[in-house]
Amino acid sequence: MSLKYHMPTKVFIGENCIIENKEVFKSLGKKALIVTGARSAKINGSQSDVISALDSVGISYLIFDKVMSNPTIACVYEGAKIARENNVDFIIAIGGGSPMDAGKAIALLAAQDIKEENLFSGVYENKVLPMVYIPTTAGTGSEVTQYSILTNDKAKTKMSIATELIFPTIAFLDAKYTLQLPLTTTINTAVDALSHAVEGMLSIKASFISDTLACESIKMITNCIPKILKSLKNPDIVIDKNTREQLLYASFMAGIVIAQTGTTAVHAMGYSLTYFKDIDHGRANGLLLGEFLKFVEKENPDRIKKILEAMNLNSTEEFINLMDELLGTKENITRDEIDEYSDIAMKTKNISNCIVKPKKEDLIKMYQEVFN
Amino acid sequence: MSLKYHMPTKVFIGENCIIENKEVFKSLGKKALIVTGARSAKINGSQSDVISALDSVGISYLIFDKVMSNPTIACVYEGAKIARENNVDFIIAIGGGSPMDAGKAIALLAAQDIKEENLFSGVYENKVLPMVYIPTTAGTGSEVTQYSILTNDKAKTKMSIATELIFPTIAFLDAKYTLQLPLTTTINTAVDALSHAVEGMLSIKASFISDTLACESIKMITNCIPKILKSLKNPDIVIDKNTREQLLYASFMAGIVIAQTGTTAVHAMGYSLTYFKDIDHGRANGLLLGEFLKFVEKENPDRIKKILEAMNLNSTEEFINLMDELLGTKENITRDEIDEYSDIAMKTKNISNCIVKPKKEDLIKMYQEVFN
Repeated sequence: MSLKYHMPTKVFIGENCIIENKEVFKSLGKKALIVTGARSAKINGSQSDVISALDSVGISYLIFDKVMSNPTIACVYEGAKIARENNVDFIIAIGGGSPMDAGKAIALLAAQDIKEENLFSGVYENKVLPMVYIPTTAGTGSEVTQYSILTNDKAKTKMSIATELIFPTIAFLDAKYTLQLPLTTTINTAVDALSHAVEGMLSIKASFISDTLACESIKMITNCIPKILKSLKNPDIVIDKNTREQLLYASFMAGIVIAQTGTTAVHAMGYSLTYFKDIDHGRANGLLLGEFLKFVEKENPDRIKKILEAMNLNSTEEFINLMDELLGTKENITRDEIDEYSDIAMKTKNISNCIVKPKKEDLIKMYQEVFN
Repeated sequence: MSLKYHMPTKVFIGENCIIENKEVFKSLGKKALIVTGARSAKINGSQSDVISALDSVGISYLIFDKVMSNPTIACVYEGAKIARENNVDFIIAIGGGSPMDAGKAIALLAAQDIKEENLFSGVYENKVLPMVYIPTTAGTGSEVTQYSILTNDKAKTKMSIATELIFPTIAFLDAKYTLQLPLTTTINTAVDALSHAVEGMLSIKASFISDTLACESIKMITNCIPKILKSLKNPDIVIDKNTREQLLYASFMAGIVIAQTGTTAVHAMGYSLTYFKDIDHGRANGLLLGEFLKFVEKENPDRIKKILEAMNLNSTEEFINLMDELLGTKENITRDEIDEYSDIAMKTKNISNCIVKPKKEDLIKMYQEVFN
């Protein structure tokens, strides 16, 4: 089977990169829709930087700031309606995973009619609005992926729109927007990025280049963990700017990884924890990741060894202990819930994407090990 | 200064990847111009694989197989004329660096009128034919760069067309086409790829992601060198398929690196060796690279240490010895020639791209160390 490498997004990196490269907005049109959440983009300075840039190059804009955590299908149809009614030329998404996910779906739905029942079909016309992406957390990597993850109440889980059409056109990585992130968000998003890099190495689509980026991303996040733990023990210790940059850059590289490899059983299992139990997405991955490493290790110890080496760890037990230290007290999940979540996870494409494919009983066992 | 990462080419990787993914040709049009050299694409099987793929998806084609080593401006204008007269929809370039360089210029010139005096201006309309790239040597990395290097007799050197317009649309990496490469070509191209990765780490545009790819590329090439040296000592020893794959993949990653970083004084100095002395491009880089490492080391030992570590070497002297072993007896260059070549190199953009910027006397000293 041949492998593929593709990540067409143009990425600007470094402090003040939006202002320094404001001219690039002009290549995308004259009117933008800014897609974001209610608060954080206004607080961390990203929205005002974007608006300054747009103003100074003469681009008008509207703001759609109704994106909630785990955005719904209704939310993206609403955003697309606003984009159409106002004839915007392109989308600017600012925020954590939720505005990133919503922005791509809005860019797609603004450019073409897609019925709700076909939204996740993977079959679309070759039309989409250009997108500018500004991550303000360091976890999702969505600024460099072709995925938009939405909450689908009919399927009782999160589902992906996956199409090359929705690779963002441009991304800006400026860690200054992440400086004030709360510690819990910092941990959950760092663990999300780590999960992307690790799962990328456990995918059947892993290649020499995705492994290269994944290993470096894992190393960078690993180097940041002691500082995060220090801050966890003493909230007066602020996470420094260099660490913030390393986390953002690691998240970006892990995003490139999953753009090639997709994710695995970890994400499949995690989606139910988020949907039914409102457990943060990154946290859900982090809770499950260690048990998945143990599961894969039985049949493919070499791959796991490579991951552990990148983290300077000697065993999957050490990995689990580290995640426990970062993630703290676990939620309660019943045996019946585990059974239901395992059924849902087994239906996802992520399962067949694993280098060692779990059966339903394997998923049950992993959930049980985590939550009992 | 903000950094940039951009490499939009869609890359298919692995044995028989052209045939396995033949459907992608259909997205590019109905008629192709195959740009290649006179011989190698016919011998190594690449041209017949392309033609089989085109035939089976109903795409017609013409062949322009007049690309010489170090293609000239006249050559690419001739190819573009054929492309226009025959209304081809896209370009397929097959071969080593020369057809790769020519194909991009032809794709650009077929889509827009550019006078010869403006060819290297960097100012173009936003029009180009789509391009499919199939490297059959493992050195240039051109399949994933925005550069087309042509021989400019007026400037008495090689010059670059550099524009994002000429990133290939699609690349196919199948190492089977490189299995029969002569040893000298194998060495010169491997050294070219090594030079790209190393120079990428010595560029002012180097970033965490270009460094990540560069280090891995350097390690992969380093792992192949003992096998190349064995074959050099005993020509009966054939370079195995796995080594061929590693060299091709390392060259690809080094191509992504220079797409971000550009090249340095090494390339600037090497172009004259190729133009005036007909020294192969990769060989020219390899001859000069060690002295450039020594030059940079004086002011920035950490960067050089990182490169040497990736190669398991302890000193720049060891690096020079290794290149000497690979490249054999050196050519004769006079003191007057060195002076002329240094003048030409000083005029290139590559000089200001170096993390430690050489003066003319530094270039002279490097040339002298190499050739005396």
